Amino acid sequence: PMNPSYKDTFKAYSEAVDQRSNGAWQAARFGAIAVLVRSMTLKKDAYAHTGAVNYQDSLPRIPAMALSTEDADWLSNTLKSGVDCRASLQLSATWFADTLSHNVVGEIRGTQKRDEIITIGGHLDSWDLGEGAHDDGAGIVHSLEAIRLMKKNKIKPVHTIRCVLFMNEENGNRGGLTYAKLAAERGEKHIAAMESDRGGFKPEAFSVDASETALAAVKQLQPQLDKSGIKEIYAGYGGVDIGPLKKVNPGIVLIGLVPESTLYFNYHHAETDVLEAVNPDHLQAGAQAFYEMLVLIDKNL
Amino acid sequence: PMNPSYKDTFKAYSEAVDQRSNGAWQAARFGAIAVLVRSMTLKKDAYAHTGAVNYQDSLPRIPAMALSTEDADWLSNTLKSGVDCRASLQLSATWFADTLSHNVVGEIRGTQKRDEIITIGGHLDSWDLGEGAHDDGAGIVHSLEAIRLMKKNKIKPVHTIRCVLFMNEENGNRGGLTYAKLAAERGEKHIAAMESDRGGFKPEAFSVDASETALAAVKQLQPQLDKSGIKEIYAGYGGVDIGPLKKVNPGIVLIGLVPESTLYFNYHHAETDVLEAVNPDHLQAGAQAFYEMLVLIDKNL
Repeated sequence: PMNPSYKDTFKAYSEAVDQRSNGAWQAARFGAIAVLVRSMTLKKDAYAHTGAVNYQDSLPRIPAMALSTEDADWLSNTLKSGVDCRASLQLSATWFADTLSHNVVGEIRGTQKRDEIITIGGHLDSWDLGEGAHDDGAGIVHSLEAIRLMKKNKIKPVHTIRCVLFMNEENGNRGGLTYAKLAAERGEKHIAAMESDRGGFKPEAFSVDASETALAAVKQLQPQLDKSGIKEIYAGYGGVDIGPLKKVNPGIVLIGLVPESTLYFNYHHAETDVLEAVNPDHLQAGAQAFYEMLVLIDKNL
Repeated sequence: PMNPSYKDTFKAYSEAVDQRSNGAWQAARFGAIAVLVRSMTLKKDAYAHTGAVNYQDSLPRIPAMALSTEDADWLSNTLKSGVDCRASLQLSATWFADTLSHNVVGEIRGTQKRDEIITIGGHLDSWDLGEGAHDDGAGIVHSLEAIRLMKKNKIKPVHTIRCVLFMNEENGNRGGLTYAKLAAERGEKHIAAMESDRGGFKPEAFSVDASETALAAVKQLQPQLDKSGIKEIYAGYGGVDIGPLKKVNPGIVLIGLVPESTLYFNYHHAETDVLEAVNPDHLQAGAQAFYEMLVLIDKNL
């Protein structure tokens, strides 16, 4: 669209990102010895935007590098011009063996429905070029701040509220998968989960992945979020980390915080994703909206 | 509000800016020999945000300097601590004599109502610390691009369309006042004017200063602007440059382009207001919305 909204931000990404995630093994099938991938960003800039790369055991694990959009355009134009063009690649990336890491979990016990859990969270890990301020430092701050506001405002939740700072979303969603696996093993009942993983921008909406009945119930909460600037509650994606809980509790309501994210991919997985790129007022407004939604679903679900 | 919207951006500014515009002469009344003014920005940063300062002929024209918010907080805390605190001021600013300058005007003659004029524009001048990219380079681009799109799409307007790049908005609105003065002298009939002077951010709405009847008519155009991402048309301010036309043609419809401006004062009148702070997609989307509104009012007014 001419003027994309917060609903459009992740559409182009989800449709194009296989060039990065599966480009290497696909190219290896045709004998490529390396791949250079145009960065997944709408911005014309000089920064490499990186991300997960998959390999197939039956095919060579060829090197894969992200090119900035400026460099990719230069390379493309140079190739088109017919000039002889050679690339020399130098990579310092290494695959290390897996190591033990942890989700960080805090809990406020429910006063009435102690055995029914509402999880809120974001993910702790990030791609190491920047600081991961938008992806997903903002989600961590939103989650911690929602809990702080709950304590500050002396709210005793109906359900048990769990704040989970997920580890390793970026490289296989191990934190989210492990959290769901433990939930299943323990027979936990998760009625809802909220995630913030779309940046620390001005909050605009919530997207909800739930049954039609539950979606309708959550949508009815919108007027109570008016003051927080939440304009819309719509059917959509919850979040990567909380997603696996759906297999454990198919009736779960998954809720994603949706900010004005049209500049998200200026920063995503790049050197530019630093704290200075996050506006403090927008970050605080996001935390407030996240907190208010948490209190509302605790009361109403 | 906790999560300010595009409607709130200029409210705080308009209520606080008299500290800068009238602080010097007010302080002079009490014997001050200079004033240091906290910058008009919500952002905590190290940049001085400047702007117009008024004096009174009957009072000393004492020096006035903008302090960055970080410096102002430091100064305030230092003063509170009771430490002996002295300031040494060095200013290079000078009042030069007025000199001749010009609005830049282009015109497409109307096909049916040639004598009825619709003006669109922004202002050419800016405070000289940065480049004036948001204030108001963006408005200039929106205006030029609206005319370019009109020609490209071979639209023959009903009314005469005038694109005016106003000179000297920042220091007394001389361009806008002179344009209106000439319009009066020539007996011109101005039925509408559109201004973009709120930055090159993602377009969200239009604010309209008009009679109730005309406002209702313009509001009805909103669905046709849906695709441009324009969510709302509401009663509000038109713009500084086009404002004086109202005295010439009281029935005029004044329309301001309203972008997602909550970060506007991060850049306003500061070294940070440079082209790099403008997102090209947002700038283009603003021009598209400005153009579409122009075509709609030309057809419907």
